[in-house]
Amino acid sequence: MTEEMIDFLAKLVAIPSISADREMAGESLKTANFIKDNLEKLGAEVKLVDNLMKDKNPLILARLGNDPAKKTIICYSHYDVQPASKDDGWDTEPFEMTVKDDGYMYGRGTNDDKGPITALYFALKELLEVGELPVNIGFLYEGEEESSSGGFEETVEANLDFYGDVDGIIVLDTSWFGTETPSMDYGFRGIVYVTIKITGPNADQHSGLVGGTIREPMTDLSYLFTKLIDLEGKILIDGFYDNVKEMSDAEAALYENVEFDMDAHKKFLGVDRMISDDPKKVLMNGWRNPCLSIHGVQGAFYGPGAKTVVPGTVIGKVSVRIVPDQQPAEIADKFVKYIQSEFDKLNSPNKLIVESIGEGDWWYGDVDNFLFKAGDRAILEYWKIKPSYARSGGSIPIIPFMEKIFKAPAIGLGVGQSTDGAHSQNERLRIKNLLGAKEVLKLMLQEIAR
Amino acid sequence: MTEEMIDFLAKLVAIPSISADREMAGESLKTANFIKDNLEKLGAEVKLVDNLMKDKNPLILARLGNDPAKKTIICYSHYDVQPASKDDGWDTEPFEMTVKDDGYMYGRGTNDDKGPITALYFALKELLEVGELPVNIGFLYEGEEESSSGGFEETVEANLDFYGDVDGIIVLDTSWFGTETPSMDYGFRGIVYVTIKITGPNADQHSGLVGGTIREPMTDLSYLFTKLIDLEGKILIDGFYDNVKEMSDAEAALYENVEFDMDAHKKFLGVDRMISDDPKKVLMNGWRNPCLSIHGVQGAFYGPGAKTVVPGTVIGKVSVRIVPDQQPAEIADKFVKYIQSEFDKLNSPNKLIVESIGEGDWWYGDVDNFLFKAGDRAILEYWKIKPSYARSGGSIPIIPFMEKIFKAPAIGLGVGQSTDGAHSQNERLRIKNLLGAKEVLKLMLQEIAR
Repeated sequence: MTEEMIDFLAKLVAIPSISADREMAGESLKTANFIKDNLEKLGAEVKLVDNLMKDKNPLILARLGNDPAKKTIICYSHYDVQPASKDDGWDTEPFEMTVKDDGYMYGRGTNDDKGPITALYFALKELLEVGELPVNIGFLYEGEEESSSGGFEETVEANLDFYGDVDGIIVLDTSWFGTETPSMDYGFRGIVYVTIKITGPNADQHSGLVGGTIREPMTDLSYLFTKLIDLEGKILIDGFYDNVKEMSDAEAALYENVEFDMDAHKKFLGVDRMISDDPKKVLMNGWRNPCLSIHGVQGAFYGPGAKTVVPGTVIGKVSVRIVPDQQPAEIADKFVKYIQSEFDKLNSPNKLIVESIGEGDWWYGDVDNFLFKAGDRAILEYWKIKPSYARSGGSIPIIPFMEKIFKAPAIGLGVGQSTDGAHSQNERLRIKNLLGAKEVLKLMLQEIAR
Repeated sequence: MTEEMIDFLAKLVAIPSISADREMAGESLKTANFIKDNLEKLGAEVKLVDNLMKDKNPLILARLGNDPAKKTIICYSHYDVQPASKDDGWDTEPFEMTVKDDGYMYGRGTNDDKGPITALYFALKELLEVGELPVNIGFLYEGEEESSSGGFEETVEANLDFYGDVDGIIVLDTSWFGTETPSMDYGFRGIVYVTIKITGPNADQHSGLVGGTIREPMTDLSYLFTKLIDLEGKILIDGFYDNVKEMSDAEAALYENVEFDMDAHKKFLGVDRMISDDPKKVLMNGWRNPCLSIHGVQGAFYGPGAKTVVPGTVIGKVSVRIVPDQQPAEIADKFVKYIQSEFDKLNSPNKLIVESIGEGDWWYGDVDNFLFKAGDRAILEYWKIKPSYARSGGSIPIIPFMEKIFKAPAIGLGVGQSTDGAHSQNERLRIKNLLGAKEVLKLMLQEIAR
């Protein structure tokens, strides 16, 4: 069966379903049809559903099993991949999967998410070969995840009745937090992205002409940046922390079993020192505490060398990652009002427009529910290792969206390893992880049915 | 003679001597040869001298008159021009000079500097037609001014003995400060350009991954920016103002006759308020006081939209304009040391490299010397207006260079008007100004000889 799985994955990898490139839309459709054909071979009812957002790849909606006595579990993955080209520094052709002696399969999508799709497919195939499925499976595969899941929410909403009642959601789109300990994800941070636009002169000026005679927009913006965050990383927006949930003992306990080698992580980042010397505190800061990043400035000089421009308009780009129970809209509102009031204090002749341009909700899974219990037992049984409970500091707003719309809890089941390079050159997946994910899924679905 | 002058200028404008475009090097050479041929017709000894910097246009060195009893005056201009294309928004073909009913000649280079070159040529031609020149003239025309005068200093230095003893330098490369009052320039600010490079992670990171776990380089840089300048425009670098010359009554008096409509200037810039409501103070701040500008950030996100990058390395670009008697090297040193010490206070795990990447000296002419006296009298005689004494906040380091190397004082004699759009679309020169510059030059050279 291993050969067959590798072959299946190689076929998927061979179709470059790059959602970022609309000229590859045909390849995405080919990928979707490949999956559809195979799911149909399992006996599934499959629909390719037009994405309701223009020029976006279709969603694959499928159901396997329709027994009202059984739980219904939605499995989410995406069939699109990041762009890749050998010229980017790949050692092998990214769209010709290469199995190496190190036990890894190299190719674009092996980790993210064509490997997970393969693991689930064979888990179900094997379960069917020996009997019937312990649960009803709803497949929800999108083709735009690498392009911000465009059209996902509206298209799912329009096709909600396809799945019937849903009991749980397994997200197959994450990796282990480390390399040795399987992990299950129970949380992502949300995000609020704000632009701070300051306009002085109506065109860029030469610093020889205006230098010293006007308040320059970059000066105002620099001052505003420092009003947002202090050097310890504390966010200074009024009331920002009001709704941040305090950590319970139970939540704190989840940090005990996380595989995190901070020295290796520091080496990977190339930094001498993290925000704290306590690895747990670093994890908590990255996962369960909010943060603020200044991403850059639009409108100012950004090239190499020297240019004596005084930018007429500069747009600061700042985002905050938010956590339970902060609400995106409320944080956006506080952020905007705070900047407006700080700008007023600058007594500037310049004009300010501050606005939130993107908001996404956090996700905080219930680690006590049947999904995590089943995952925990399955992982322990197959790997003989207690899993890490992991969160991510990033944002996948479609998970809280799915929880809400399906009225069911979600779990992230890691498939590959943290070092697989999901979005990098030489993306890979260990054969051991592919097989492991298949086995864990089989055990987990059986546990869920119990 | 007016027709002949306009025709001469039109011929010069027709050759697109764009120094920024190396593919136009042939056109620059053609322009240089056109000028050479004509100067030779006047009887001048002319050399085209290879620019000592690679891939740069030649310098034109010429001498007219060699009477040891007479003063020798170097006249500086540049024969290269800014790029221009009708597509940029010109109403006429930029390299086909168009004379309009409004009394202006439109075309690239009309103001900067092909008009001034024409005015001098005909001034000398007319003086020679009625007798001999009152002074010896040394021509120093470069073809790289619009590209930072690359190779100018070394090439002039290598050809210094061509001119013999020099008594004065007339720079024909500026415009009147306003539109109605002829002006003479007596000063430019110098410049020190500094890069502040802060490195955290060894590659750009995703704010979901590292947000909250490291000190981000953009945070450090923002704090450093605010340590450089306060909201009133005061520069906070230790000892920065130590050598700024106090204003004498004589210098203050020079601001009395400057044609400066601050309301029109505010309208032009599109700002509600200048740094002061007192026009003289604004002029002084732009001309005789130092200033600091934050030009931008290299390495950070600069595009439209939202990107959640945490830049690994950011390079802040900052320059100060310096004034008498600040020394570029000393200011650069103070700047660098100050940033290093402020960075130390930030207690950052990131790495700092701060360095000066460009230094240029200020120029402060002696308005009491024979050049300004002669210019003043010539302008008053021809225009019946007392000239403005003007400075510029920008930097033309070749002027102090020429003063030093020729051991002679310089003056900037404005030819066109401030509204001519020297570097913009629809560059122009008023016929009245072309004729005026010719007449003023004739009178001025005669005054100098007196």
